[in-house]
Amino acid sequence: MPKVSDQHRADRRRQILDGARAAFARHGYEGATVSRLEAEIGLSRGAIFSYFPSKWAIFYALAQDDQERVFQLILDQGFGAVIRLMAEESPDWLGVYFELIRKLRTDLDLRDEWSNRTPELNQRVTERFRQLQERGEFRRDLPVDAIGEFLGLIIDGVAVHVTAGYPVDTDSLLKLVSAAIAPQ
Amino acid sequence: MPKVSDQHRADRRRQILDGARAAFARHGYEGATVSRLEAEIGLSRGAIFSYFPSKWAIFYALAQDDQERVFQLILDQGFGAVIRLMAEESPDWLGVYFELIRKLRTDLDLRDEWSNRTPELNQRVTERFRQLQERGEFRRDLPVDAIGEFLGLIIDGVAVHVTAGYPVDTDSLLKLVSAAIAPQ
Repeated sequence: MPKVSDQHRADRRRQILDGARAAFARHGYEGATVSRLEAEIGLSRGAIFSYFPSKWAIFYALAQDDQERVFQLILDQGFGAVIRLMAEESPDWLGVYFELIRKLRTDLDLRDEWSNRTPELNQRVTERFRQLQERGEFRRDLPVDAIGEFLGLIIDGVAVHVTAGYPVDTDSLLKLVSAAIAPQ
Repeated sequence: MPKVSDQHRADRRRQILDGARAAFARHGYEGATVSRLEAEIGLSRGAIFSYFPSKWAIFYALAQDDQERVFQLILDQGFGAVIRLMAEESPDWLGVYFELIRKLRTDLDLRDEWSNRTPELNQRVTERFRQLQERGEFRRDLPVDAIGEFLGLIIDGVAVHVTAGYPVDTDSLLKLVSAAIAPQ
Protein backbone atom coordinates (compact mmCIF):
# COMPACT_ATOMS: atom_id res chain seq x y z
CA MET A 1 0.00 0.00 0.00
CA PRO A 2 1.44 3.42 -0.87
CA LYS A 3 2.20 5.62 2.09
CA VAL A 4 -0.19 8.53 2.48
CA SER A 5 1.83 11.59 1.56
CA ASP A 6 2.51 14.38 4.01
CA GLN A 7 0.77 16.76 1.61
CA HIS A 8 -2.32 14.59 1.63
CA ARG A 9 -2.33 14.48 5.41
CA ALA A 10 -1.92 18.25 5.63
CA ASP A 11 -4.81 18.78 3.18
CA ARG A 12 -7.08 16.46 5.14
CA ARG A 13 -6.18 18.17 8.41
CA ARG A 14 -7.03 21.53 6.83
CA GLN A 15 -10.33 20.16 5.52
CA ILE A 16 -11.24 18.92 9.01
CA LEU A 17 -10.36 22.23 10.68
CA ASP A 18 -12.22 24.35 8.10
CA GLY A 19 -15.33 22.19 8.25
CA ALA A 20 -15.27 22.00 12.04
CA ARG A 21 -14.94 25.79 12.31
CA ALA A 22 -18.06 26.16 10.18
CA ALA A 23 -19.92 23.53 12.25
CA PHE A 24 -18.98 25.18 15.56
CA ALA A 25 -19.98 28.60 14.23
CA ARG A 26 -23.35 27.27 13.07
CA HIS A 27 -24.24 25.07 16.04
CA GLY A 28 -22.02 26.16 18.93
CA TYR A 29 -19.55 23.85 20.64
CA GLU A 30 -22.10 21.68 22.43
CA GLY A 31 -24.44 21.66 19.44
CA ALA A 32 -21.76 20.49 16.99
CA THR A 33 -22.51 16.77 17.24
CA VAL A 34 -20.33 14.18 15.54
CA SER A 35 -22.98 13.79 12.79
CA ARG A 36 -22.95 17.53 12.16
CA LEU A 37 -19.16 17.55 12.09
CA GLU A 38 -19.23 14.72 9.53
CA ALA A 39 -21.75 16.60 7.38
CA GLU A 40 -19.86 19.90 7.45
CA ILE A 41 -16.40 18.35 7.00
CA GLY A 42 -17.45 15.78 4.39
CA LEU A 43 -15.56 12.90 6.01
CA SER A 44 -16.65 9.97 8.17
CA ARG A 45 -16.12 10.05 11.93
CA GLY A 46 -13.52 7.33 11.49
CA ALA A 47 -11.49 9.53 9.16
CA ILE A 48 -11.95 12.64 11.32
CA PHE A 49 -10.90 10.98 14.55
CA SER A 50 -7.86 9.38 12.96
CA TYR A 51 -6.50 12.93 12.70
CA PHE A 52 -7.72 14.30 16.05
CA PRO A 53 -8.39 12.30 19.22
CA SER A 54 -11.58 14.19 20.15
CA LYS A 55 -13.94 17.07 19.35
CA TRP A 56 -12.16 19.07 22.01
CA ALA A 57 -8.80 18.49 20.26
CA ILE A 58 -10.26 19.89 17.02
CA PHE A 59 -11.63 22.96 18.78
CA TYR A 60 -8.36 23.43 20.65
CA ALA A 61 -6.40 23.33 17.38
CA LEU A 62 -8.70 26.04 15.97
CA ALA A 63 -8.21 28.16 19.09
CA GLN A 64 -4.46 27.70 18.76
CA ASP A 65 -4.66 28.85 15.13
CA ASP A 66 -6.62 31.93 16.22
CA GLN A 67 -4.23 32.81 18.99
CA GLU A 68 -1.24 32.32 16.71
CA ARG A 69 -2.82 34.65 14.18
CA VAL A 70 -3.53 37.27 16.87
CA PHE A 71 -0.04 37.13 18.37
CA GLN A 72 1.62 37.14 14.95
CA LEU A 73 -0.48 40.15 13.98
CA ILE A 74 0.56 41.99 17.16
CA LEU A 75 4.20 41.27 16.35
CA ASP A 76 3.91 42.21 12.66
CA GLN A 77 1.39 45.06 12.61
CA GLY A 78 0.59 46.00 16.21
CA PHE A 79 -2.46 45.84 18.44
CA GLY A 80 -4.67 47.97 16.17
CA ALA A 81 -4.56 45.33 13.44
CA VAL A 82 -5.95 42.78 15.90
CA ILE A 83 -8.90 44.99 16.83
CA ARG A 84 -9.66 45.61 13.16
CA LEU A 85 -9.44 41.89 12.42
CA MET A 86 -11.80 41.07 15.28
CA ALA A 87 -14.35 43.63 14.18
CA GLU A 88 -14.50 41.70 10.88
CA GLU A 89 -14.51 38.25 12.46
CA SER A 90 -17.53 35.93 12.16
CA PRO A 91 -19.63 36.70 15.26
CA ASP A 92 -20.93 33.13 15.26
CA TRP A 93 -17.46 31.77 15.51
CA LEU A 94 -16.44 34.22 18.28
CA GLY A 95 -19.57 33.21 20.19
CA VAL A 96 -18.21 29.67 20.55
CA TYR A 97 -15.54 30.98 22.92
CA PHE A 98 -18.19 32.16 25.36
CA GLU A 99 -19.41 28.60 25.83
CA LEU A 100 -15.99 27.95 27.29
CA ILE A 101 -15.47 30.62 29.88
CA ARG A 102 -17.36 28.97 32.73
CA LYS A 103 -15.35 25.80 32.13
CA LEU A 104 -12.10 27.75 32.44
CA ARG A 105 -12.92 28.91 35.95
CA THR A 106 -13.89 25.52 37.31
CA ASP A 107 -11.16 23.48 35.62
CA LEU A 108 -7.76 24.80 36.71
CA ASP A 109 -5.77 22.41 34.51
CA LEU A 110 -7.76 23.50 31.49
CA ARG A 111 -7.23 27.18 32.37
CA ASP A 112 -3.45 26.69 32.57
CA GLU A 113 -3.37 24.73 29.32
CA TRP A 114 -5.58 27.37 27.69
CA SER A 115 -3.38 30.30 28.76
CA ASN A 116 -0.31 28.53 27.38
CA ARG A 117 -1.65 27.24 24.11
CA THR A 118 1.08 28.98 22.08
CA PRO A 119 3.89 29.27 24.65
CA GLU A 120 6.61 30.37 22.24
CA LEU A 121 4.60 33.18 20.62
CA ASN A 122 3.27 34.15 24.04
CA GLN A 123 6.86 34.59 25.13
CA ARG A 124 7.72 36.65 22.05
CA VAL A 125 4.77 39.00 22.57
CA THR A 126 5.70 39.50 26.23
CA GLU A 127 9.26 40.21 25.15
CA ARG A 128 8.06 42.73 22.55
CA PHE A 129 5.91 44.53 25.14
CA ARG A 130 8.86 44.69 27.49
CA GLN A 131 11.00 46.27 24.76
CA LEU A 132 8.30 48.81 23.92
CA GLN A 133 8.16 49.75 27.58
CA GLU A 134 11.94 50.03 27.86
CA ARG A 135 12.05 52.20 24.75
CA GLY A 136 9.48 54.48 26.37
CA GLU A 137 6.65 53.72 23.93
CA PHE A 138 4.55 52.20 26.75
CA ARG A 139 4.09 53.96 30.07
CA ARG A 140 6.56 52.85 32.72
CA ASP A 141 4.58 53.56 35.87
CA LEU A 142 2.71 50.24 35.55
CA PRO A 143 4.04 46.68 35.27
CA VAL A 144 4.19 45.51 31.67
CA ASP A 145 1.90 42.60 32.65
CA ALA A 146 -0.82 45.10 33.60
CA ILE A 147 -0.62 46.58 30.11
CA GLY A 148 -0.79 43.12 28.55
CA GLU A 149 -3.82 42.25 30.70
CA PHE A 150 -5.48 45.52 29.68
CA LEU A 151 -5.02 44.77 25.98
CA GLY A 152 -6.37 41.25 26.52
CA LEU A 153 -9.38 42.71 28.30
CA ILE A 154 -10.02 45.07 25.38
CA ILE A 155 -9.91 42.11 22.98
CA ASP A 156 -12.43 40.23 25.16
CA GLY A 157 -14.70 43.28 25.36
CA VAL A 158 -14.62 43.64 21.57
CA ALA A 159 -15.44 39.93 21.23
CA VAL A 160 -18.50 40.42 23.45
CA HIS A 161 -19.70 43.42 21.44
CA VAL A 162 -19.15 41.74 18.07
CA THR A 163 -20.91 38.58 19.24
CA ALA A 164 -23.86 40.52 20.66
CA GLY A 165 -24.14 42.52 17.44
CA TYR A 166 -23.19 45.90 18.91
CA PRO A 167 -21.12 48.07 16.58
CA VAL A 168 -17.51 48.76 17.53
CA ASP A 169 -16.11 52.18 16.64
CA THR A 170 -12.57 50.90 16.06
CA ASP A 171 -11.01 54.29 15.29
CA SER A 172 -12.20 55.86 18.54
CA LEU A 173 -11.38 52.71 20.49
CA LEU A 174 -7.81 52.66 19.22
CA LYS A 175 -7.33 56.33 20.12
CA LEU A 176 -8.55 55.58 23.65
CA VAL A 177 -6.30 52.53 23.97
CA SER A 178 -3.26 54.45 22.69
CA ALA A 179 -3.82 57.20 25.24
CA ALA A 180 -4.21 54.60 28.00
CA ILE A 181 -0.86 52.91 27.41
CA ALA A 182 1.22 55.89 26.23
CA PRO A 183 3.82 57.40 28.59
CA GLN A 184 1.97 59.76 30.94
CA MET B 1 -60.66 36.98 52.08
CA PRO B 2 -58.19 39.59 53.28
CA LYS B 3 -56.37 41.42 50.54
CA VAL B 4 -52.72 40.46 50.25
CA SER B 5 -50.79 43.46 51.49
CA ASP B 6 -48.37 45.38 49.32
CA GLN B 7 -45.60 44.55 51.79
CA HIS B 8 -46.36 40.87 51.46
CA ARG B 9 -46.27 41.13 47.66
CA ALA B 10 -42.98 43.00 47.77
CA ASP B 11 -41.47 40.38 50.09
CA ARG B 12 -42.59 37.54 47.85
CA ARG B 13 -41.24 39.27 44.77
CA ARG B 14 -37.89 39.71 46.55
CA GLN B 15 -37.91 36.04 47.57
CA ILE B 16 -38.50 34.98 43.96
CA LEU B 17 -35.75 37.22 42.61
CA ASP B 18 -33.18 36.15 45.23
CA GLY B 19 -33.94 32.46 44.77
CA ALA B 20 -33.94 32.73 40.98
CA ARG B 21 -30.59 34.54 41.01
CA ALA B 22 -29.11 31.65 43.01
CA ALA B 23 -30.69 29.09 40.66
CA PHE B 24 -29.38 30.84 37.53
CA ALA B 25 -25.91 31.18 39.08
CA ARG B 26 -25.85 27.49 39.96
CA HIS B 27 -27.36 26.01 36.79
CA GLY B 28 -27.11 28.70 34.10
CA TYR B 29 -30.12 30.18 32.34
CA GLU B 30 -31.00 27.11 30.29
CA GLY B 31 -30.25 24.73 33.16
CA ALA B 32 -32.51 26.55 35.63
CA THR B 33 -35.60 24.41 35.05
CA VAL B 34 -38.93 25.27 36.66
CA SER B 35 -38.36 22.49 39.23
CA ARG B 36 -34.98 23.93 40.13
CA LEU B 37 -36.45 27.42 40.40
CA GLU B 38 -39.15 26.05 42.75
CA ALA B 39 -36.55 24.31 44.90
CA GLU B 40 -34.27 27.34 45.17
CA ILE B 41 -37.08 29.87 45.67
CA GLY B 42 -39.15 27.72 48.03
CA LEU B 43 -42.45 28.44 46.28
CA SER B 44 -44.59 26.45 43.86
CA ARG B 45 -44.55 27.22 40.14
CA GLY B 46 -48.10 28.52 40.51
CA ALA B 47 -47.01 31.08 43.09
CA ILE B 48 -43.85 32.03 41.15
CA PHE B 49 -45.64 32.60 37.85
CA SER B 50 -48.40 34.64 39.48
CA TYR B 51 -45.68 37.27 40.06
CA PHE B 52 -43.78 36.94 36.77
CA PRO B 53 -45.20 35.76 33.44
CA SER B 54 -42.13 33.65 32.49
CA LYS B 55 -38.62 32.56 33.40
CA TRP B 56 -37.36 35.18 30.98
CA ALA B 57 -39.32 37.89 32.84
CA ILE B 58 -37.61 36.87 36.10
CA PHE B 59 -34.17 36.95 34.52
CA TYR B 60 -34.94 40.26 32.84
CA ALA B 61 -35.98 41.78 36.21
CA LEU B 62 -32.64 40.63 37.69
CA ALA B 63 -30.74 42.15 34.77
CA GLN B 64 -32.67 45.39 35.25
CA ASP B 65 -31.71 45.39 38.94
CA ASP B 66 -28.05 44.89 37.99
CA GLN B 67 -28.07 47.62 35.41
CA GLU B 68 -29.80 50.01 37.81
CA ARG B 69 -27.17 49.28 40.40
CA VAL B 70 -24.36 49.86 37.90
CA PHE B 71 -25.81 53.12 36.56
CA GLN B 72 -26.61 54.39 40.06
CA LEU B 73 -23.07 53.58 41.14
CA ILE B 74 -21.63 55.48 38.16
CA LEU B 75 -23.77 58.49 39.10
CA ASP B 76 -22.97 58.31 42.84
CA GLN B 77 -19.37 57.11 42.97
CA GLY B 78 -18.02 57.02 39.42
CA PHE B 79 -16.85 54.31 37.03
CA GLY B 80 -14.13 52.96 39.33
CA ALA B 81 -16.72 51.82 41.87
CA VAL B 82 -18.38 49.73 39.15
CA ILE B 83 -15.17 47.96 38.26
CA ARG B 84 -14.45 47.23 41.92
CA LEU B 85 -17.99 45.92 42.38
CA MET B 86 -17.66 43.63 39.37
CA ALA B 87 -14.34 42.23 40.52
CA GLU B 88 -16.21 41.09 43.67
CA GLU B 89 -19.31 39.84 41.84
CA SER B 90 -20.25 36.14 41.82
CA PRO B 91 -18.56 34.75 38.68
CA ASP B 92 -21.32 32.16 38.34
CA TRP B 93 -23.94 34.83 38.15
CA LEU B 94 -21.97 36.92 35.63
CA GLY B 95 -21.54 33.82 33.51
CA VAL B 96 -25.30 33.69 32.93
CA TYR B 97 -25.05 36.82 30.81
CA PHE B 98 -22.80 35.04 28.34
CA GLU B 99 -25.56 32.57 27.55
CA LEU B 100 -27.43 35.55 26.22
CA ILE B 101 -25.07 37.26 23.86
CA ARG B 102 -25.68 35.09 20.80
CA LYS B 103 -29.41 35.65 21.27
CA LEU B 104 -28.89 39.42 21.26
CA ARG B 105 -27.35 39.38 17.82
CA THR B 106 -29.99 37.26 16.15
CA ASP B 107 -33.03 38.82 17.85
CA LEU B 108 -33.13 42.53 17.00
CA ASP B 109 -36.21 43.25 19.13
CA LEU B 110 -34.56 41.65 22.11
CA ARG B 111 -31.38 43.64 21.52
CA ASP B 112 -33.31 46.93 21.49
CA GLU B 113 -35.28 46.00 24.58
CA TRP B 114 -32.07 44.89 26.29
CA SER B 115 -30.21 48.14 25.53
CA ASN B 116 -33.12 50.16 26.92
CA ARG B 117 -33.93 48.18 30.03
CA THR B 118 -33.51 51.22 32.30
CA PRO B 119 -34.26 54.11 29.92
CA GLU B 120 -34.42 56.86 32.53
CA LEU B 121 -31.15 56.00 34.25
CA ASN B 122 -29.57 55.41 30.86
CA GLN B 123 -30.52 58.96 29.98
CA ARG B 124 -29.11 60.34 33.24
CA VAL B 125 -25.78 58.56 32.76
CA THR B 126 -25.50 59.89 29.19
CA GLU B 127 -26.32 63.36 30.50
CA ARG B 128 -23.65 63.05 33.21
CA PHE B 129 -21.03 61.97 30.67
CA ARG B 130 -21.95 64.93 28.49
CA GLN B 131 -21.48 67.31 31.44
CA LEU B 132 -18.13 65.76 32.32
CA GLN B 133 -17.03 66.27 28.74
CA GLU B 134 -18.24 69.87 28.68
CA ARG B 135 -16.46 70.60 31.94
CA GLY B 136 -13.26 69.24 30.37
CA GLU B 137 -12.95 66.17 32.59
CA PHE B 138 -13.38 63.86 29.57
CA ARG B 139 -11.42 64.37 26.36
CA ARG B 140 -13.29 66.42 23.77
CA ASP B 141 -11.71 65.10 20.57
CA LEU B 142 -14.02 62.05 20.57
CA PRO B 143 -17.82 61.87 20.64
CA VAL B 144 -19.14 61.26 24.15
CA ASP B 145 -20.85 58.10 22.84
CA ALA B 146 -17.45 56.67 21.93
CA ILE B 147 -16.34 57.17 25.54
CA GLY B 148 -19.51 55.53 26.83
CA GLU B 149 -19.00 52.57 24.48
CA PHE B 150 -15.40 52.26 25.65
CA LEU B 151 -16.44 52.11 29.30
CA GLY B 152 -19.11 49.54 28.43
CA LEU B 153 -16.50 47.49 26.63
CA ILE B 154 -14.22 47.60 29.67
CA ILE B 155 -17.09 46.36 31.85
CA ASP B 156 -17.70 43.48 29.44
CA GLY B 157 -14.00 42.63 29.35
CA VAL B 158 -13.89 42.55 33.14
CA ALA B 159 -16.98 40.31 33.17
CA VAL B 160 -15.21 37.86 30.84
CA HIS B 161 -12.07 37.79 33.00
CA VAL B 162 -14.01 37.39 36.27
CA THR B 163 -16.15 34.61 34.78
CA ALA B 164 -13.13 32.78 33.36
CA GLY B 165 -11.34 33.07 36.71
CA TYR B 166 -8.53 35.36 35.54
CA PRO B 167 -7.48 37.95 38.12
CA VAL B 168 -8.24 41.60 37.40
CA ASP B 169 -5.69 44.16 38.62
CA THR B 170 -8.31 46.87 39.26
CA ASP B 171 -5.86 49.58 40.37
CA SER B 172 -3.80 49.34 37.18
CA LEU B 173 -6.91 48.99 35.05
CA LEU B 174 -8.44 52.16 36.48
CA LYS B 175 -5.22 54.10 35.89
CA LEU B 176 -5.24 52.95 32.26
CA VAL B 177 -8.93 53.84 31.82
CA SER B 178 -8.42 57.30 33.39
CA ALA B 179 -5.57 58.03 31.02
CA ALA B 180 -7.66 56.88 28.06
CA ILE B 181 -10.57 59.23 28.70
CA ALA B 182 -8.71 62.22 30.17
CA PRO B 183 -8.24 65.37 28.05
CA GLN B 184 -5.25 64.77 25.78
